[in-house]
Amino acid sequence: MHAMQMISTHPDVRGSTNDELIRCIEECYDCAQTCVSCADACLAERMVEELRQCIRLNLDCADVCGATGRLASRRTGSNEHLLRAMLEACAEACRLCGTECARHASQHEHCAICAEACRRCEQACVTAAGTVTPSRRQ
Amino acid sequence: MHAMQMISTHPDVRGSTNDELIRCIEECYDCAQTCVSCADACLAERMVEELRQCIRLNLDCADVCGATGRLASRRTGSNEHLLRAMLEACAEACRLCGTECARHASQHEHCAICAEACRRCEQACVTAAGTVTPSRRQ
Amino acid sequence: MHAMQMISTHPDVRGSTNDELIRCIEECYDCAQTCVSCADACLAERMVEELRQCIRLNLDCADVCGATGRLASRRTGSNEHLLRAMLEACAEACRLCGTECARHASQHEHCAICAEACRRCEQACVTAAGTVTPSRRQ
Amino acid sequence: MHAMQMISTHPDVRGSTNDELIRCIEECYDCAQTCVSCADACLAERMVEELRQCIRLNLDCADVCGATGRLASRRTGSNEHLLRAMLEACAEACRLCGTECARHASQHEHCAICAEACRRCEQACVTAAGTVTPSRRQ
Repeated sequence: MHAMQMISTHPDVRGSTNDELIRCIEECYDCAQTCVSCADACLAERMVEELRQCIRLNLDCADVCGATGRLASRRTGSNEHLLRAMLEACAEACRLCGTECARHASQHEHCAICAEACRRCEQACVTAAGTVTPSRRQ
Repeated sequence: MHAMQMISTHPDVRGSTNDELIRCIEECYDCAQTCVSCADACLAERMVEELRQCIRLNLDCADVCGATGRLASRRTGSNEHLLRAMLEACAEACRLCGTECARHASQHEHCAICAEACRRCEQACVTAAGTVTPSRRQ
Repeated sequence: MHAMQMISTHPDVRGSTNDELIRCIEECYDCAQTCVSCADACLAERMVEELRQCIRLNLDCADVCGATGRLASRRTGSNEHLLRAMLEACAEACRLCGTECARHASQHEHCAICAEACRRCEQACVTAAGTVTPSRRQ
Repeated sequence: MHAMQMISTHPDVRGSTNDELIRCIEECYDCAQTCVSCADACLAERMVEELRQCIRLNLDCADVCGATGRLASRRTGSNEHLLRAMLEACAEACRLCGTECARHASQHEHCAICAEACRRCEQACVTAAGTVTPSRRQ
């Protein structure tokens, strides 16, 4: 991905990048794609009725990761208070989805891969949230 | 919109709809469209350089409203803890965007309309969040 | 929705609204929400394995309607060639999803409602596409 | 990204992956993020009023790439006719956005990077569209 290149050339950033946030952007886009794929693969499984909750959480996680990745990509002006709330919500979405996927990991390899992507994204969101310090309530 | 009809015919809902949540879904989709429009109208204004923060908050608010509207539309399985976090983040997104739009309301009618849509969506999110009670940490 | 109010106050539009396009925006946002709901309701049905294709088409239709609604909301600058391609793709997405939902309409009321929303959005996209005349290949 | 791993473990795919389509998915997600970033960086530039059309095309391209990446990720059931239409629309979105970004590439490095990401995604969409052969009008 080009997140690092793009953000380091932003006129208000000029090289002073928040590397934890950039890594988080990359994980959010990756996790969003992985969750769309996992929902779709679960839907094709013979025992789909046992995977309803997994599909539900995959779809929710894809939506939250997608929105969080877009917000975290913006550096014009500021919206740190909201960004932090979204990073925390995204960590929660990944935690829930990753835990559910892990329950099906031994039977479905796509769930094992997705559980791992969710765990990486969850950790990246937690780390990035720690770097976003709203100096004041906007 | 068809949110009420669709959710009242969901096999797990069967008429026991959460009307506050359904109203919130409608406001989220409306506010998402309004914020996309307001960002675009601000971008065309002669004094666009004074509207950078407004455009930024409009784009963020559109993303968060879009994701929240999709999550709130799902009634299969459960994800109440995340839904509540997203409703709260969405209320914050609307509060920030509505406040900024209100600053430009006297000069730009689109900002006045958007400020009002944000306020309605913020209130609907707050009300809906109060009805979503995670019985346990999932 | 506020699409008409927002677009009629856009500095480059100033009242000369394309009413067919505005109606199409509203149908796109409505159909996007309806398809998210229908995918979710189908997922909860006892015979979910017979609704796999319906869920797939619902998710695709929601994505295309969402993107088309956002594109159609923008009036700054111009992108008529792409807008027309997206309106045509969206009409196709709605046609396919509406046809599949109609097959399940007698058994599942949510599919009947969704089939009707898809048909309305399909027609609105076809009508709007006819009003978008790219004067030249951009 | 995990697109290759996810799709190769889909129960209906089982290793018979369409590698051109998978590469296209990765380019779509990358280009979507790059365009969100470029719109935001352009918005912060001193000469923002000269970048209105660039921002407009960036936002449109991000929306179309996002929707196309999600559609292309789904392998359950089939929707080849729509997928092809979206791949073609996405190639067009990337062509238009890439051409506009290239006009500003000498002044703004983010536009140069974005122009290149758009060109890669355009080519990946064209190549992938050639592999998606709807056997019949669905």
